[in-house]
Amino acid sequence: MATLKDVAERAGVTVTTVSRVINNRGYISEQTRKKVYEVMKELNYQPNELARSLSMQRTNTIGIIVPHIVHPYFAKLISNLESAAANKGYKILLCNSKEKNEKELEYIQMFKSNRVSGIVLCSRNVDIQEMKNQDIPVITIERNLEAGTVGIQCDNYQGGCLATEHLISCGCKNLLHLSGIKNENMPADARAEGFIAVCEKYGVRHREVMATSTIYNTLDYHEHIRKAIEADPGVDGIFASSDLIAAQTIQICAEMSISIPGQIRLVGFDDVDIARLTTPTITTIRQPVKEMAEWAIEFIQRSLDHEAVPEQFKLPVSLVKRNSS
Amino acid sequence: MATLKDVAERAGVTVTTVSRVINNRGYISEQTRKKVYEVMKELNYQPNELARSLSMQRTNTIGIIVPHIVHPYFAKLISNLESAAANKGYKILLCNSKEKNEKELEYIQMFKSNRVSGIVLCSRNVDIQEMKNQDIPVITIERNLEAGTVGIQCDNYQGGCLATEHLISCGCKNLLHLSGIKNENMPADARAEGFIAVCEKYGVRHREVMATSTIYNTLDYHEHIRKAIEADPGVDGIFASSDLIAAQTIQICAEMSISIPGQIRLVGFDDVDIARLTTPTITTIRQPVKEMAEWAIEFIQRSLDHEAVPEQFKLPVSLVKRNSS
Repeated sequence: MATLKDVAERAGVTVTTVSRVINNRGYISEQTRKKVYEVMKELNYQPNELARSLSMQRTNTIGIIVPHIVHPYFAKLISNLESAAANKGYKILLCNSKEKNEKELEYIQMFKSNRVSGIVLCSRNVDIQEMKNQDIPVITIERNLEAGTVGIQCDNYQGGCLATEHLISCGCKNLLHLSGIKNENMPADARAEGFIAVCEKYGVRHREVMATSTIYNTLDYHEHIRKAIEADPGVDGIFASSDLIAAQTIQICAEMSISIPGQIRLVGFDDVDIARLTTPTITTIRQPVKEMAEWAIEFIQRSLDHEAVPEQFKLPVSLVKRNSS
Repeated sequence: MATLKDVAERAGVTVTTVSRVINNRGYISEQTRKKVYEVMKELNYQPNELARSLSMQRTNTIGIIVPHIVHPYFAKLISNLESAAANKGYKILLCNSKEKNEKELEYIQMFKSNRVSGIVLCSRNVDIQEMKNQDIPVITIERNLEAGTVGIQCDNYQGGCLATEHLISCGCKNLLHLSGIKNENMPADARAEGFIAVCEKYGVRHREVMATSTIYNTLDYHEHIRKAIEADPGVDGIFASSDLIAAQTIQICAEMSISIPGQIRLVGFDDVDIARLTTPTITTIRQPVKEMAEWAIEFIQRSLDHEAVPEQFKLPVSLVKRNSS
């Protein structure tokens, strides 16, 4: 079986260069990378990443836990985490918790056994006990976890304010906020706080309707939305706490023969693909998901390098105007 | 540091049982599982999966390559692959190729170095050369790869027939098929064949408009759809080769003041979440994605156990009637 040295000799480069190509670390010209891959193929060389990992007691792997892969927000987040990780030579282990705490604990145990370099947690808050005495950096995205290394979130309060100010500037006088679940102490709760603060500032009539965790887990808000609108048919502006809820609001309004944006103006949250795929398209609050993902990987790297990292890291959001408002 | 034996003794079970709990293999009662986890936590035991993997020269990991994580079809497929893998004690390494051949080759190299148990390839067809002399099972989903172990696909031809027969039964006389890219020899090409065969059988006027790979990679079909409809304003039925294309067709028709299903009846393909989130909802051809994912993991397991597996494995599709037709 060919060795690293054989590959280096045949390719006319140093062993270090071959190692860098394999581990995708440091600068390597495209020409050298290509040459090394060609020789590896020629000699049928298969580097043993396992042996390397065992000697270092760490793999170039980042474990990710999300509640729902198919939820468009998490699909976008995973995609960006994968790109950011690949750019720094990491691969990702992906797990779907479906919001089950015991599944999360098993996954975290598995990540530890597999000596991952870091964990990105986008799922429900796991018992703090489990995360203590952890030598693996744990980055949370849009979750509160006391024992985590860095908590990354977007400025949810600012998002709630931007959405509400936009609806009021469009002339809305009777606002409804379709918020998420509330018993989980999530950063997203601040969206409702921003909504209420702006409504009170302008003296605008407003109401918040919260979802249950059952609805959140099925991702089906239709009946919930219908009831919320029926409870006050005079509503003329809706701030939905996700684009997914906004898309379903468009469907319910179509069924109820309520025109959007004619009779009700609608703003979502997240700016995921679905916001551009509905009819009308959805005005929304854009989370900087790409930047959040890049910082997550960056903070894992910095933690491993024993650099100081912030406990909380908040990124600004922006309003994206489309046809629903 | 606590050993496997310490855990077994304290939990009052055998070492084999502890090992089974850790590797999630074989039947273990929920009570035993809970007890073992409690003791592991108590003793702060961290099994070293790396050492185990090195001694076996294989990890309980399955490598997955998709072209686009955010594409709703692939998001659904990944979610189902993750569940099916987790049920059999495997974890997944996820990679996004963005349709770049050289990125795919690097990922496959990385999977080999990491001694994955199997590879699920849902991305573009990689050079056959790379896959030869492979001792790792490679399962393709909706792709043709001569050197793969098993090719799983849905019955795309049947799907094309079902969609077209449905449009004709709704009274359509002038059909348009918005197909995918054609230069890649993909199983999905058979959707157009089914469409044409049924149109010819019933003597219905028909036309196929293919996408370019540029459009496919940006996932933005809007201008392409507009041109296809403008080229023949008499079209009264559209069969889109994905729900993503169908969702964008709804948007373009709304812009052109064409009512769906009033003036144009529309059928998509895949049955992903987006088909239930548009207004109107999309009548579509349902791919059995859950079953396809379960079979992919099952075939990896059977290959590793040296059982015979089929080269091709085709699952039936079905028509899901919603409001767009």
